[in-house]
Amino acid sequence: MGFRVAVVGATGNVGREILAIMAEREFPADDVVALASSRSIGQEVSFGEDDILKVQDLETFDFRGIDIVLSSPGAKISAVHSPRAAKAGAVVIDNTSQFRMDPDVPLVVPEVNPGAIAGFVKRGIIANPNCSTIQLVVALKPIHDAAGIERVNVATYQSVSGAGREAVEELAEQSIQLLSGKGPVTARVVAKQIAFNCVPQIDKFEDNGYTREEMKMVWETRKILEDANIRPSA
Amino acid sequence: MGFRVAVVGATGNVGREILAIMAEREFPADDVVALASSRSIGQEVSFGEDDILKVQDLETFDFRGIDIVLSSPGAKISAVHSPRAAKAGAVVIDNTSQFRMDPDVPLVVPEVNPGAIAGFVKRGIIANPNCSTIQLVVALKPIHDAAGIERVNVATYQSVSGAGREAVEELAEQSIQLLSGKGPVTARVVAKQIAFNCVPQIDKFEDNGYTREEMKMVWETRKILEDANIRPSA
Repeated sequence: MGFRVAVVGATGNVGREILAIMAEREFPADDVVALASSRSIGQEVSFGEDDILKVQDLETFDFRGIDIVLSSPGAKISAVHSPRAAKAGAVVIDNTSQFRMDPDVPLVVPEVNPGAIAGFVKRGIIANPNCSTIQLVVALKPIHDAAGIERVNVATYQSVSGAGREAVEELAEQSIQLLSGKGPVTARVVAKQIAFNCVPQIDKFEDNGYTREEMKMVWETRKILEDANIRPSA
Repeated sequence: MGFRVAVVGATGNVGREILAIMAEREFPADDVVALASSRSIGQEVSFGEDDILKVQDLETFDFRGIDIVLSSPGAKISAVHSPRAAKAGAVVIDNTSQFRMDPDVPLVVPEVNPGAIAGFVKRGIIANPNCSTIQLVVALKPIHDAAGIERVNVATYQSVSGAGREAVEELAEQSIQLLSGKGPVTARVVAKQIAFNCVPQIDKFEDNGYTREEMKMVWETRKILEDANIRPSA
């Protein structure tokens, strides 16, 4: 018997990728439900090459009977619906930043701290770190085990798609404008001109002068490696 | 009475910029000569908004009577002509990598080690560091003076123009191809697709796994701060 799985945020780039990978790996699901906000109702999303799923309304969806929820609709929406799904009995794997630093929610990278998963019993939610943190801790874990780690200096080079589909569209529009000699361009989505540029700012600045994206790598690395003394600087 | 100045590599991006800044700052020159390789002979370059200079042949130019040479034609060409100009009595300020690590040539950043300029008497040449090193040592100098420096971790984000005009053309061509849905593109000048990309390699890899550009920041920082114990990692 397979699982009943709900994918929350199924129309987003990440949700679509989750569905594609589930199909590719033949995830043992008897039933897969695609959920999104009410403005996406009636849309269809692909599940593998052959199947099409009709998007259902997250707001009114009854999670009873669902075994696993894969949630990536954005932090504010997860804040409401991940606990709701967990209360209905599902195990929620939450891909947003909402629960990562919640002491009652394990923050798990399977290659690094699989055992932490046991902590899901507290709230029914397992959080997934920031993509940069995942790559970092996979590299750090064996060093941390062998010798301990005092400091980490890390630089990431992230694609525009991390800022969402609108940012990718802005990149294309600005590129076309500039290549046609129709500059200067106006930034709407990304803080500065993003075409032919590399903007050293992801998310807002915190009071300490680091951006939130940079601080996520500090907070999450400490939690996953269970070592509050590591000093990462991103 | 003003100086007689020769700009070597006058048709390149850097040479043109040197001429523009000299004009903008009203550098006290009585005479400015634009020199380049024989294939640029007869070309004209701007000197400020009003003046035009005819490019002369570097190969056969007689440097006698020239006070200052500003040289940025590439390392191999500087190797031949900067010593030749110095022997003819000019002070050569060399912008290439050719003489930077020569123990008889001072490597000078005016904001950091202006006194080192005195060493020019040995060979008549003053070298200018890599652009990344310049910015780095200006920031490091006061810290080095106040507390000393053991390690430096540095990440640079460099524009494609650093790889020359052909690389910039490749960037434009690839961008147009990709925006027109005509990918994948073929890399000719830059090691990998450079359009909509950030390639973490500048120059060739050295035996130690760092690129030459990265090692320049190590070697040059140590020379300028006169401290062989600093360990930069770029």
